[in-house]
Amino acid sequence: MNHPTLPAGRIRPAPDELLRQLEQRFGASFTTARAVCAQHGRDESPFDAPPPAGVVFCACTEDVADAVRLCGAFATPVIAFGAGSSLEGQLLAVQGGISLDLTRMDRVLEIVAEDMLVRVQPGVTRLRLNDELRHSGLFFPIDPGADATIGGMTATRASGTNAVRYGTMRENVLALTVVLADGTVLRTGTRARKSSAGYDLTRLFVGSEGTLGIITEVTLRLHPQPQAVAAAVCSFASVAQAVDCTIELIQSAIPIARCELMDANAVRAVNAHDRLDLPEQPLLLMEFHGSAEGVREQAQATQQIAAAHGGSDFAWADTPEERTRLWKARHHAYLSALQTRPGCRCVTTDTCVPISRLAESINDTVAEADAAGLPYFLVGHVGDGNFHVGYLIDPQLPAERELAEKLNARLVRRALRLGGTCSGEHGVGLHKQEFLREEAGDAAIALMRTLKQALDPAGILNPGKIFR
Amino acid sequence: MNHPTLPAGRIRPAPDELLRQLEQRFGASFTTARAVCAQHGRDESPFDAPPPAGVVFCACTEDVADAVRLCGAFATPVIAFGAGSSLEGQLLAVQGGISLDLTRMDRVLEIVAEDMLVRVQPGVTRLRLNDELRHSGLFFPIDPGADATIGGMTATRASGTNAVRYGTMRENVLALTVVLADGTVLRTGTRARKSSAGYDLTRLFVGSEGTLGIITEVTLRLHPQPQAVAAAVCSFASVAQAVDCTIELIQSAIPIARCELMDANAVRAVNAHDRLDLPEQPLLLMEFHGSAEGVREQAQATQQIAAAHGGSDFAWADTPEERTRLWKARHHAYLSALQTRPGCRCVTTDTCVPISRLAESINDTVAEADAAGLPYFLVGHVGDGNFHVGYLIDPQLPAERELAEKLNARLVRRALRLGGTCSGEHGVGLHKQEFLREEAGDAAIALMRTLKQALDPAGILNPGKIFR
Repeated sequence: MNHPTLPAGRIRPAPDELLRQLEQRFGASFTTARAVCAQHGRDESPFDAPPPAGVVFCACTEDVADAVRLCGAFATPVIAFGAGSSLEGQLLAVQGGISLDLTRMDRVLEIVAEDMLVRVQPGVTRLRLNDELRHSGLFFPIDPGADATIGGMTATRASGTNAVRYGTMRENVLALTVVLADGTVLRTGTRARKSSAGYDLTRLFVGSEGTLGIITEVTLRLHPQPQAVAAAVCSFASVAQAVDCTIELIQSAIPIARCELMDANAVRAVNAHDRLDLPEQPLLLMEFHGSAEGVREQAQATQQIAAAHGGSDFAWADTPEERTRLWKARHHAYLSALQTRPGCRCVTTDTCVPISRLAESINDTVAEADAAGLPYFLVGHVGDGNFHVGYLIDPQLPAERELAEKLNARLVRRALRLGGTCSGEHGVGLHKQEFLREEAGDAAIALMRTLKQALDPAGILNPGKIFR
Repeated sequence: MNHPTLPAGRIRPAPDELLRQLEQRFGASFTTARAVCAQHGRDESPFDAPPPAGVVFCACTEDVADAVRLCGAFATPVIAFGAGSSLEGQLLAVQGGISLDLTRMDRVLEIVAEDMLVRVQPGVTRLRLNDELRHSGLFFPIDPGADATIGGMTATRASGTNAVRYGTMRENVLALTVVLADGTVLRTGTRARKSSAGYDLTRLFVGSEGTLGIITEVTLRLHPQPQAVAAAVCSFASVAQAVDCTIELIQSAIPIARCELMDANAVRAVNAHDRLDLPEQPLLLMEFHGSAEGVREQAQATQQIAAAHGGSDFAWADTPEERTRLWKARHHAYLSALQTRPGCRCVTTDTCVPISRLAESINDTVAEADAAGLPYFLVGHVGDGNFHVGYLIDPQLPAERELAEKLNARLVRRALRLGGTCSGEHGVGLHKQEFLREEAGDAAIALMRTLKQALDPAGILNPGKIFR
């Protein structure tokens, strides 16, 4: 079921001769097996597309470069594949082509603790990276919820729960290795924390969703594991109160590490899924990092602000185990919500607005969703002004999808009016293309096209994404 | 006197017809007066070039767009001009052309305190911006020393003393208005703190040194004025000890706001220029921001680390006036040093290395400079791994310039070997082009050229800079 408004593009068939040459070059690491192709033609978006014509399991940058060169010779698209957790259809083969599976490139190549950086292959997932960093005194904070790969997170400019304190992939990628459309291997950036040496090629690729090059190595900034961590849950009678509390918190410049909103629907879903007994009201899930004294200061100031907005006394998660349980539940919100309506799919929104406009942005959204009567849940990295509504639609009922898309469009346009963006962290993919045009304007889209044309004249790199 | 190794380029004369049309469009705001052109053809670099053929004093984005369009029609270069404080020859009219003076575009357009951001015209200087922010509870931290314009700082991806805590222009520019080579007015970014909506056009222009577009409006992130500020001076017997102290300090993740090194030559120069009585030894000039308790914690931890590396007891600058006096002196280091050798010019280095390699980077540099016998001084944003040696050369003695360049080349190549960059904050301009090639590699330079060609096919935007 392809959504009618999706820019599906024309399928370019992969010529037999290309498949033959891929098989010759990659042997058993290349397959056209139906099940494998199907698995590589599906992400967490609510969209369907035909599967890729084949999958190359790449083991190194040279494999990627060779695959890109071979596909380029036949004008056949290439699409990088990591965890398959993209939410906007980024990895769907809407114009056909070959999927380059990078999950075998999963080595942590070098931990440079004395410079607080790490060099990884793109298939490393964020949980495994942090597992390998466990004894280094450092951690990698970017946490989009899903156990995404670092390559995928780089390509979508991901962020998540810790971004309010530690920034996004934009701020935490130091250097890249990228395979360009002609197979050239490019290195960007250095190990220095800052540089004014020429164009910022690193940030050209961060967030380019595989359309300008394929990322085969990433050097990331790390952060010291905080001396002290405290997590707390604070419940509110309404989403509006929780949002007002967040706005004051951020405006007070308390260096909170995480500030997450869940509405009552999301809380109910995770209670059921993760057997928790959180009060089934809107809540803020917060975490403070710092010295013991610093954490105490932050928590105290925050509790005062929360109380002034009708927030409950903080319920503390004191042990690492309790914190992990809580954050796991938060990360399961999406899956938990899907289970509240068996067989449903989820249309997810991703706006981000300046913090002062967050109340207007969320309150009107909640009112519209309630009035529409479609099942939904709301979670948000509200400290950043970013939140997600998931409309749970029955894929058999086109009217539900249409309604969800209508609510989404209203929400996005409100965010744009408030000075915000259509995508805080999920990227554009297939689903936000028209919104991107409204947000960025024709001159910006024209420039993006100029860049795409300059870097990928034959249009083989993940075509049909970001813009048509 | 043009330095022999400078890529000077071919001068393209500005046709009389262009001058006539500029005069018609801009009236008294366009001039070809020799003194004005001369002033606009000179920056703080040690290089000379012929002055531009004329200067347009632009008052708004439309002025810039019209000037660019007119010059484009005659294939005549345009070069943006702000404070004239660039250090690498960025504003020199090495291929002729028209200087666009943006200093009349000096309005702070909108302070949005509740979202901690500000929208400014490019001609606003950082001191005036902070002056206007004085009562907002916010400040703009990026501080390259010179009272540069925000437009120039954006174009060179500037940083300076506060970057160790607050980041550089890369992290603090939210949105831009840019005039492209064909006169199109482009808007990039939004007011949201983060976004995954399409290519990062904002960061494409940050650091592009006027070669991809001319920045006519900037939206900046602001930061809360810290509750408490403390500044301290700590002297060391050797530069090496001060550097070792800095490395441990950064590796301990103390969130120091400023951590500046001055060698004994620099201290002597500022003592003389600013009538201070700092001990004429290598010193660290540090500043701590936070809550009163947080600042105490940071300072205490830092004093312990310093003492372990032979540092003196901290001399505190307790009042805002004392702090201002101290930082002014630091910012005067460059001018003060110039005055120690009347008539000299300064060849400035700008490498930045990963913090663990800073000792090797600085100590070998000091040994080489001492051995060479050329007057020099050393200052550094060492918390970032960035430092500057200024070799004070007699412009009448080509041998001195050659020696300075030889020392510079050795220093840069060492930084590159250590995983660093040839430019931490000054940009490439004319002077670092060959080093950029060594640092970034041929594939990266080819890609930069591709971008330049795609955005400015006629090569009218500040030609001859960054790469030939």
